[in-house]
Amino acid sequence: MCPSIVADHHNRGFIIPIGGAERREKKPVILQRFVDLSGGPDSHIVIVPTASRADETGPNYIKVFENLGVENVEYLPITSREDCQNQAYAESLDRATGIFLTGGNQLRLSTILGGTVIAQSIRKRNAEGVPVAGTSAGASIMSEHMIASGEGNKTPKSDGVNLAPGLGLTNAAIIDQHFTQRNRLGRLFSATSYNPFLLGIGIDEDTAAFIGPDDMFEVVGSGSITIVDASNLTYSSMWQAGKGEALSLLGLKVDLLAKGCRYNISTRQAFAP
Amino acid sequence: MCPSIVADHHNRGFIIPIGGAERREKKPVILQRFVDLSGGPDSHIVIVPTASRADETGPNYIKVFENLGVENVEYLPITSREDCQNQAYAESLDRATGIFLTGGNQLRLSTILGGTVIAQSIRKRNAEGVPVAGTSAGASIMSEHMIASGEGNKTPKSDGVNLAPGLGLTNAAIIDQHFTQRNRLGRLFSATSYNPFLLGIGIDEDTAAFIGPDDMFEVVGSGSITIVDASNLTYSSMWQAGKGEALSLLGLKVDLLAKGCRYNISTRQAFAP
Repeated sequence: MCPSIVADHHNRGFIIPIGGAERREKKPVILQRFVDLSGGPDSHIVIVPTASRADETGPNYIKVFENLGVENVEYLPITSREDCQNQAYAESLDRATGIFLTGGNQLRLSTILGGTVIAQSIRKRNAEGVPVAGTSAGASIMSEHMIASGEGNKTPKSDGVNLAPGLGLTNAAIIDQHFTQRNRLGRLFSATSYNPFLLGIGIDEDTAAFIGPDDMFEVVGSGSITIVDASNLTYSSMWQAGKGEALSLLGLKVDLLAKGCRYNISTRQAFAP
Repeated sequence: MCPSIVADHHNRGFIIPIGGAERREKKPVILQRFVDLSGGPDSHIVIVPTASRADETGPNYIKVFENLGVENVEYLPITSREDCQNQAYAESLDRATGIFLTGGNQLRLSTILGGTVIAQSIRKRNAEGVPVAGTSAGASIMSEHMIASGEGNKTPKSDGVNLAPGLGLTNAAIIDQHFTQRNRLGRLFSATSYNPFLLGIGIDEDTAAFIGPDDMFEVVGSGSITIVDASNLTYSSMWQAGKGEALSLLGLKVDLLAKGCRYNISTRQAFAP
């Protein structure tokens, strides 16, 4: 799905994919910056813990945000498509000044939220200027084309990754998370080579891309973000490689961005701190 | 150490780094091709199992090469620097038409062989045209600058890899092995960014680079070889990054080469099959 249309008098809100395992207690720089963008202590944060099967995920994040001084923080206990019809949840999102998607399983998230008023509301609120942050599965689902699954530690293969439609907050990139920690470069290479118009963004744990309305992002956190730009590929064996066969991809451009680096998704240019 | 001088009337022998875990029984394409280059059934293969602490490593590879039809195959049971003085071993290398370095620990290999007549002999024989293959640790030691150690699964860091002097059969590249399987891209990024004149060659398991005397190599085996070319870096934080801090490296070129692809180490050009 393409991003919602941004009205003339609005800027789209920040999109903040986080690579999972972000710091939640001592010096939680990523979550603090998300709170600052959402309005600081006066913000109204709404947590969507649907990716997670654990009942405590929502309440735990309430404590995290309360510790950051946020007074208005709530979570939506959505665990089924039926729950998405609850009018009160849509009203909560209408009041939100920041929306947070927890980790878990991105297919659980997309199969429960996809096509419901909750998904529409998250997209609409972001187009109206509300920042949306998501960690781990919550980061993956942000893009139009979502990495649904695919083994780590594997040589890139034609069948090394499975895509599914995501929430579509951005359509210029495909996002992966726990990136270095779970050795997911192979599946990101496979994903970007399916159609090199997609920029690959691989985000380490405790690391985030703060993507502004101008499609420029800054890296925040302790790890790095790996950018895979396949747009200048001189050769790809993708379309003709047999099942399970190792891929050849010649001419990939890779940037490795640690905190303070910036990147323009539209022009595919990286900037040093 | 720089490669030995190749005399006017000779071509240097092939250098064949293998990423470890190469097939040894059914369809051992890498080892078969090494045997073919060494003279086929008439070849005289000398195995140096010194990287391994296991007594059976030498005898096991004798069986592997015998199964490939090689009649003259022996191993040098070198486990100490003293063993390297054994004149019979140097004479075996003088008769060798192919030399094979097993896996194990590359620092064990370099600390035992380094500076001895055995190391000199391997270098000299390669300069005289004898192919030298090495798997895993035996692949790492081939380059002048050798990756001695460094954790996998890590974001590239200034202190993410430790180098040591290797055998110096080639000085244009730095070689890593078990590459995708052990998630070693981070340490290869670190190693190549120390001094971007070095080309990074990361070799998957059951995969080999057959590097000819013209510095062109072909990929053989079931995995892929990842080439890291840092020569056009536009920014590197390497020299100023704090200990343990994630690196920023902008403008890396990466090629992913599966079987049949070729690469010219001198000109840094990749060629599709």
